[in-house]
Amino acid sequence: MAIERFHGVLAPVITPFDTDLRPDAERLLNHCRWLLAQNVGLAVFGTNSEGNSLSVDEKIDLLDQLIDRGIDSTQMMPGTGCCALTDSVRLSTHAVRRGCRGVLMLPPFYYKHVSDEGLYQYYAQIIERVGSSALQIYLYHIPAVSQAPIHLSLIERLLKDYPKNIAGIKDSSGDWSNTEMLLQQGWDDFHVFAGSELFLLQNMRAGGAGCISATANINAAAINQLYRQWKTEDAKRLQQCLNKVRLLVQQYPLIPALKAIVGHYAADLSWERLRPPLVALSPIQKQTLLQQLEKNHFSMPGLAEN
Amino acid sequence: MAIERFHGVLAPVITPFDTDLRPDAERLLNHCRWLLAQNVGLAVFGTNSEGNSLSVDEKIDLLDQLIDRGIDSTQMMPGTGCCALTDSVRLSTHAVRRGCRGVLMLPPFYYKHVSDEGLYQYYAQIIERVGSSALQIYLYHIPAVSQAPIHLSLIERLLKDYPKNIAGIKDSSGDWSNTEMLLQQGWDDFHVFAGSELFLLQNMRAGGAGCISATANINAAAINQLYRQWKTEDAKRLQQCLNKVRLLVQQYPLIPALKAIVGHYAADLSWERLRPPLVALSPIQKQTLLQQLEKNHFSMPGLAEN
Repeated sequence: MAIERFHGVLAPVITPFDTDLRPDAERLLNHCRWLLAQNVGLAVFGTNSEGNSLSVDEKIDLLDQLIDRGIDSTQMMPGTGCCALTDSVRLSTHAVRRGCRGVLMLPPFYYKHVSDEGLYQYYAQIIERVGSSALQIYLYHIPAVSQAPIHLSLIERLLKDYPKNIAGIKDSSGDWSNTEMLLQQGWDDFHVFAGSELFLLQNMRAGGAGCISATANINAAAINQLYRQWKTEDAKRLQQCLNKVRLLVQQYPLIPALKAIVGHYAADLSWERLRPPLVALSPIQKQTLLQQLEKNHFSMPGLAEN
Repeated sequence: MAIERFHGVLAPVITPFDTDLRPDAERLLNHCRWLLAQNVGLAVFGTNSEGNSLSVDEKIDLLDQLIDRGIDSTQMMPGTGCCALTDSVRLSTHAVRRGCRGVLMLPPFYYKHVSDEGLYQYYAQIIERVGSSALQIYLYHIPAVSQAPIHLSLIERLLKDYPKNIAGIKDSSGDWSNTEMLLQQGWDDFHVFAGSELFLLQNMRAGGAGCISATANINAAAINQLYRQWKTEDAKRLQQCLNKVRLLVQQYPLIPALKAIVGHYAADLSWERLRPPLVALSPIQKQTLLQQLEKNHFSMPGLAEN
C-alpha cells in the first residue's frame, strides 16, 4: 500500500541543549508534543533545528528517544541529507525503519558548483542503498544555504526513475515564482511545501501541500488555522496576521530568535543555548524582540504547562 | 616538550574508492607511501580528499588502518573540522591519540554569515574538549568553499587564548595579499601554508612554512624540490615549471582531474571513482588533459611500481 504523503504544516523543530551542549531529549519531547497538539508535523533535524550541528549518532539517538517515548513517527519528517553519502544512507535507513512518513533531504553542501549529474547520483545512490519504497523523500531546495539548487530537470529525472520515492519538495528559495513553476508541472502526487508561511495561502491556492516553516515552532496554531481555512473568506486576514509575526521575527537571526521566544514563553531559559557557530541574541535584541511580540499580543498557549 | 610544527609540502591526499564506493585503504596506503617517499606530508581528509564526503567513522577507520600499517603519524595532518562540534571533537581527539602532528581544521560550513564570536566558540570548544596540548590546529581559510572566512581578529583571539594549540593556517583564498598580511603579523611560531604551490616561492620568501596543495598529489617531487631550493638561483625557474602543471590541471574540475592523472600514471583506472556529488571527467576532458601533460613531459616516477 502506498504511503500517504504529507500535507499541512510542519516545523523544523528547534533542538534544546543541556549545559554541556548535548541534545536535551526531554525538552525536545515536550516541544514535539506541543507542536503535535496543534497539528504541526515534526521536521526534526532541519536547518532551524541546527540539524547540521548534530552528529549522525546524536540524530539517531534523538529519533529513537522521541519514538520510544510515544511520538508518532508517521508525523515525522527528519532531515537526513548529509555531505557524506554513507551518513545520508545510514540516517535515512534508520528513519525508514522507525516508520517516519518522510525525510527532508538536503543535497550535499560542502562542494560548490556541483553538477546536476552529481546531485542525481547522490539521490539515486541513497534510494538504491536504502532500498525501500517506504523511503519518501522530500527534496530540500534552499540555495542560499546549501548552495546546491534543486533544478527542475533534476526533479524530473528523479521522478522518472524513482516515482515511488520522490514525494515532494520544500522550496526555501523565498522566490514565489520558483514555487509556482514547480506547482505548474502537474507532477502526480508531488507535494510542494513552501519554506515559509508567508507563502502559505498562495501555495494552497496554487495546489501546494502546505508549509514547513521555522516560525511554526512558535506560531503553530495560527499557521495551522490558515492551512485549515484557506478556502474561507477569512483566509486573507489570517495570512496577514501570520505575516506580521513572521516579518517581525525574521528581522533577527532566526534560530536564536526562535529559541529566545520559546525560552521566554516556556519560562525556561535553557532553551536559549545554541551550538557554535550559532550564538544567542544579545540582551538588547532579545528584549526588543519580546517587546515587539507582546505589543502584537503574541502568545504560545499551552507551552509553559507542558 | 613542545611539538615541532609542520614545515614543507603536504598533499590533501586523494581518496580511492572500491566498486561499492567504500574507501579503499590499500590503494590509499600505497599513495601515502609514494607521497612520503618524496617528502610530502599527508593532509588526509582535506577538500581534495573528498574528506567531507566521508563519514567520521570512515575517517577514523582509514586513519587507524594507515597508522597500523606503518604510516608515520607525525607526517599526518588530517582534516578534522566538521559541521557538528561533536564530530570535530571526536575526530580531533582520535587524531591526537594516534599521534598526528597536526590537524587541518575547517570552520563549520553549513550555516552562512556566521559571526566571528560563533567561530571562536567553535574552535575554543573543540580545544577545551580535546583537552591536550598535543592538539596542533592549522586553521583552514578557504572562503570560496567553506563560506566562513578566518579573519585576522579571530586568529588573534585564538592565539591569545590558546597559544599552544593554534599552530598555523592554510590560506586557500588564492589571494596573495591575504597570505602576506598573515605573514606580516609576526606571530610567534605560527606557520603559514599557501593553499597552492603557485604561491610557494612567494610564501617562502615572505617567511611562510610551505604549501598544502592538491597538485602535490601528482607533482610531489617537483614541488618539494622548490621547497628545498627556494633560496637558490634556480628557484624562479622551478616555480615556473610548477605553475605550468598547476595552471594546466586546474583548468579542469580539480579532484576528478587529480584522480584521472593518478589513475593513468598508476595504470589503475579504479582511481577514477568519486563519491557523488563529484563526477569523473568526461572521456574527452580526460584525453585532452593527459595529452597536455604528456606534451609537458609530465611523469609520476615510482607510482606504477608502488
